[in-house]
Amino acid sequence: MLVSLSNEKIKKIVKLRDPAFRKEAGVFIVDGPREFRRAVNEGLEPIEIFYCKEYCNNEIMDMISGYLGKNEITIFEVSGKVYEKISYGNRKDGIAAVFKAVYRKFCDIKLSGQPMIIIADGVEKPGNIGALLRTADCAGIDAVILIGANTDIYNPNIIRSSTGTVFSVPCFSAQRDEVIEFLKINRFTVFSACPDAEKLYTEQDFTVPSAFIFGSEDKGVSNFWDDYSIEKIKIRMQGIADSLNVSVSAAIIIFEAVRQRSLK
Amino acid sequence: MLVSLSNEKIKKIVKLRDPAFRKEAGVFIVDGPREFRRAVNEGLEPIEIFYCKEYCNNEIMDMISGYLGKNEITIFEVSGKVYEKISYGNRKDGIAAVFKAVYRKFCDIKLSGQPMIIIADGVEKPGNIGALLRTADCAGIDAVILIGANTDIYNPNIIRSSTGTVFSVPCFSAQRDEVIEFLKINRFTVFSACPDAEKLYTEQDFTVPSAFIFGSEDKGVSNFWDDYSIEKIKIRMQGIADSLNVSVSAAIIIFEAVRQRSLK
Repeated sequence: MLVSLSNEKIKKIVKLRDPAFRKEAGVFIVDGPREFRRAVNEGLEPIEIFYCKEYCNNEIMDMISGYLGKNEITIFEVSGKVYEKISYGNRKDGIAAVFKAVYRKFCDIKLSGQPMIIIADGVEKPGNIGALLRTADCAGIDAVILIGANTDIYNPNIIRSSTGTVFSVPCFSAQRDEVIEFLKINRFTVFSACPDAEKLYTEQDFTVPSAFIFGSEDKGVSNFWDDYSIEKIKIRMQGIADSLNVSVSAAIIIFEAVRQRSLK
Repeated sequence: MLVSLSNEKIKKIVKLRDPAFRKEAGVFIVDGPREFRRAVNEGLEPIEIFYCKEYCNNEIMDMISGYLGKNEITIFEVSGKVYEKISYGNRKDGIAAVFKAVYRKFCDIKLSGQPMIIIADGVEKPGNIGALLRTADCAGIDAVILIGANTDIYNPNIIRSSTGTVFSVPCFSAQRDEVIEFLKINRFTVFSACPDAEKLYTEQDFTVPSAFIFGSEDKGVSNFWDDYSIEKIKIRMQGIADSLNVSVSAAIIIFEAVRQRSLK
């Protein structure tokens, strides 16, 4: 059992919180049984599993047993203290694992006949990106495209707040220019929620190939998009607030699109 | 300027994070200029204002100046270190204030002609309650009723995540029994999102007096409500996840109700 916080293995795991180190190492960390299961179900490969008996229930112990004796996976029992050090946040589920990172290439993006995608351009909080991914999963979105600073899908907070749907939703990092070209080629209409839009989101036809763009929490969608023809839509605000959380307004608009499409 | 972390005044402010102390003192703390403004706009009275020059912009300084010389308000300049100690989270806006608490009585609840209310029964995370309040504000909800553990509307995290809409949305703490009676008297139909419901939320008529009930993040709506006739509705999940965050599913359903009502 690993009990020392100064163990090199443990130090390396903690360093995986650093995006640059994560990228260089080509691995990332998943904690929590639900997230672990979803990663495995989507074909991602665990390399190392760390578990802490005092926090694991039987179901988790059984799951870990299934990996015993596999050559390519090393399993470590760790003390409560070590587990608390390597796990993220304050959930104590008793399992954390290092997985091999797999990055999707933007050129591999695949679209359905009536595509619907999300573009997160400059969304800053990993928690909001995770929530967008969770909505994308439930709404059957074709792809989520991340532009800007927070484009590392293996950020622990994105994994956590997406409840592991980040592993199944086709999620790509891309540059603005290539995204613009992609939108043109595939004849997407681009929609953006904007408080001063004239049209209500419920008056808009979302049955066309639809790209929903969301911008930074503070500044909204970047000026870069001004040159691109964007359909601005609004959610009517009936109270004192001038905006909703980005993940909430995204869900409202995207599920209106799902509703409209279900009528056709 | 207050510079000492061991100053009695500062210690008392920090203690306001404790719900029991807050309740006993009959005051609560607001931090951030947006939240401060919304509290004041809704008629709440600041008693003490703490500001830290190094974090305040001109706009905030001007706002604070407006309170100078008012008998009933004491203004303290504090050091950066003290400000960091009393403010909540890691936003550094430079203003925090103690307000007199005002608790709404459930018997004072007022309803519109076509009422729509939210019941949060056992929702645990203050962040989710705050998000529900923000949605309630934007959707023009008549009232939000809190049942269960987290019913202290002056929880700093509720204030923060509601962006101060907690001060304007008619928000009440109540017991289940009195809520049931209220629902019956006012002929509410009660709706609950449930993954195994047969009816999609989009197939449901929400133009009747509607109460939307949301339960604990882990266990959903309490069994207590089994005896009450509840219309179960579902959001179709198209991906690997079996649920959405409570605040997201609430927003999807409530804004579908808003849409339906706008058609009438």
